Amino acid sequence: MKIALLLTGNELMSGDTVDSNSSMIAQLLDPIGFEINHKVTVGDDLDLLVLELDKLSQQYDVVIVNGGLGPTVDDLTAIALAKLIGKNLVKNQQAFEHVHEWCAARGIEANEANLKQAMLPIGASVLANPVGSAVGIQLQYRQCLLLCTPGVPSELRAMLNGSVAEALKSSYPNASSKYVRRLKLFGMGESGLQQLLDDECSDWPAEVIVGFRAGAPLLELKLEVSDKKHLGYRDDCEKRLRELVGDFIVGENDETLSSVVVDLLAEKGRMLTLAESCTGGLIASQITEVSGASKVFEAGFVTYSNTIKENVLAVDHEVLEQYGAVSQEVVHAMASGALLAAGADCVIAVSGIAGPEGGTIEKPVGTVWVAWGEEDSIMTHRFNYPVERKFFQLMISSVALDLLRRYLLGETNVPGYFQRESR
Amino acid sequence: MKIALLLTGNELMSGDTVDSNSSMIAQLLDPIGFEINHKVTVGDDLDLLVLELDKLSQQYDVVIVNGGLGPTVDDLTAIALAKLIGKNLVKNQQAFEHVHEWCAARGIEANEANLKQAMLPIGASVLANPVGSAVGIQLQYRQCLLLCTPGVPSELRAMLNGSVAEALKSSYPNASSKYVRRLKLFGMGESGLQQLLDDECSDWPAEVIVGFRAGAPLLELKLEVSDKKHLGYRDDCEKRLRELVGDFIVGENDETLSSVVVDLLAEKGRMLTLAESCTGGLIASQITEVSGASKVFEAGFVTYSNTIKENVLAVDHEVLEQYGAVSQEVVHAMASGALLAAGADCVIAVSGIAGPEGGTIEKPVGTVWVAWGEEDSIMTHRFNYPVERKFFQLMISSVALDLLRRYLLGETNVPGYFQRESR
Repeated sequence: MKIALLLTGNELMSGDTVDSNSSMIAQLLDPIGFEINHKVTVGDDLDLLVLELDKLSQQYDVVIVNGGLGPTVDDLTAIALAKLIGKNLVKNQQAFEHVHEWCAARGIEANEANLKQAMLPIGASVLANPVGSAVGIQLQYRQCLLLCTPGVPSELRAMLNGSVAEALKSSYPNASSKYVRRLKLFGMGESGLQQLLDDECSDWPAEVIVGFRAGAPLLELKLEVSDKKHLGYRDDCEKRLRELVGDFIVGENDETLSSVVVDLLAEKGRMLTLAESCTGGLIASQITEVSGASKVFEAGFVTYSNTIKENVLAVDHEVLEQYGAVSQEVVHAMASGALLAAGADCVIAVSGIAGPEGGTIEKPVGTVWVAWGEEDSIMTHRFNYPVERKFFQLMISSVALDLLRRYLLGETNVPGYFQRESR
Repeated sequence: MKIALLLTGNELMSGDTVDSNSSMIAQLLDPIGFEINHKVTVGDDLDLLVLELDKLSQQYDVVIVNGGLGPTVDDLTAIALAKLIGKNLVKNQQAFEHVHEWCAARGIEANEANLKQAMLPIGASVLANPVGSAVGIQLQYRQCLLLCTPGVPSELRAMLNGSVAEALKSSYPNASSKYVRRLKLFGMGESGLQQLLDDECSDWPAEVIVGFRAGAPLLELKLEVSDKKHLGYRDDCEKRLRELVGDFIVGENDETLSSVVVDLLAEKGRMLTLAESCTGGLIASQITEVSGASKVFEAGFVTYSNTIKENVLAVDHEVLEQYGAVSQEVVHAMASGALLAAGADCVIAVSGIAGPEGGTIEKPVGTVWVAWGEEDSIMTHRFNYPVERKFFQLMISSVALDLLRRYLLGETNVPGYFQRESR
């Protein structure tokens, strides 16, 4: 079957909103066998909407409409459907009850705008929305199944996993699921990994589709087979990947560098502390973003100035004078000082020049020293990432977390981060 | 003139990439008078591309194509154009020189894949790309101006501001620029502000278009006139807005809460320190993300546990025991302790329950105390935001920064944040 997606909303045409819904729709429907073949976006214009619906419903088996179900005058999807099929809007009892229940649960009375959402074209049925006030709309027109969904992402997500998936499966019971494995990597980019696969895995089985999704800072690698009987191939490919680049594989699915580090620290019963200069609290922020971080993290220090490095982390005045704040000696002393001040087991310390100012010839913008490890085994390494300030902070935070991750796994060598990239 | 946008790329269809290019295109072209009316996305399929190009070039005056100009086999735009007009691809001298220069500047030899990018359809001309190896393609077909641009965002941005804007202006010299003013607000949402405008500004001049762009945590309000002679209206509207909600207006254009706070601190010659519990370093991270933050910020403390609050911030053991970490007394003591430890002038301290665990009946998840001000005038306030952990941290960081912003402007009352929202 062929599926088209019709997105509606002036905010999508004006650029005021970046469309992340269509990515969500593809990501949730593709694995269960419903691939989007075509995508059209139009503004909130009734005639254009009807025209597009008419064209798409002639060419596609399924049209998923997203947006235009809300309570305001801009929301035209129901009216457009009615115009398309030449019927009226009527009060749909199920939708009416849904709106009332939704309002009652919030202690408010349904107003006229809310009740507009209960008006559906004759012949349409309700696609349940467990989150919001607007119900979705399902309508069979000619040979085409029309499924209308709301633009609010949380509502859309709930419906894609619920009523929309059910409607699709009941119309196409033979659509075949895909079997997807998602690995998260840090320290390799898409082009480097692709090149490595081309070089090392020329006999890669055709049944196993490889996909990439570049993110900052992690790269997602997707291994996909569309038939259950090929799961063995997929497992073989994953094994080969782990042999090739296993140390760059941080985790799976929704795992992040900080969530993996928090889990490893908890597993080993270690407490972490942080002494951050150029990353300015970003590492602490990433660690404490993880639910349960308090089990492994009690204290972090953001020590921007030399005075504070001396007063709070007990870095020697002479060491700071002699080597400068961005030096192996100082970052080592910061690490030791933080361990002592916080009474922790593990540490990350960072001192560098985020820019755009503050660079010198010997230590240009992008120079950074990272220390990590435990009291009797503090390691240090110098990196150089001359990139824009925010991206520099993100990269260094990620490198530091990854070095601690590797340390907690017993690996003390510094890998070649991003050394294979061609672009 | 009517403009369509044709986006191409399998990654856009599979959901592996969120399309932010079309938002960028609209945002850069709309203000100079070129509004996108229609948007279509297709995968990397030659026949589909030709079909779409054929349809769109009959219906629109301008078609902007994005994607498919790269060096790999997936990149089909030039071939699709050639097929559309029934002509061959030939080596374009200008494109050929560009590729060679691009490679030479990087000390590499142009390979076959690079040189593929110099093959353009007969009759096409080059749209200069100052950033990347792929040139853009301009082609007049029937009554339609076709402009093909690369998918790499940095290249696309440079071309939209350069060769694409020039090509459009030279074809449509009378396209009229829009005059846009962008204000950033914190503490009001789109629905609340819209309602306020409906209630208080019923005589709003039709010449001044209002637009919103919701972001976390700031709301962007856009005031736009399309004729220079209406700029006075726009200024009047801005004045009325400032009278109505001026204290919620944080800044303009790219300003953020933290950049405004850093600027205010610098202006007043004040140094800031931070004592963060539940926000876990996020405030420090936002402050130090601002270039020049070191002029106003030397030290921040992430004090998760009670022991650390005692040891580092000198919070009384008895006070912690008696009132608990999430209390007015403790957050006040954290603020005082941080000021002393850092030798700073201004302070923000935060202590709360981010969840999902740790709540009690008296202090449920989402409860948070914020302290802000200076040594002899530390203010405190209790808030309650029972939302998902990451969003809670972002909201509280923003509220705390906004309270300090207001304090630095001489305002010590706590405003009703997000009190007008209906949804």
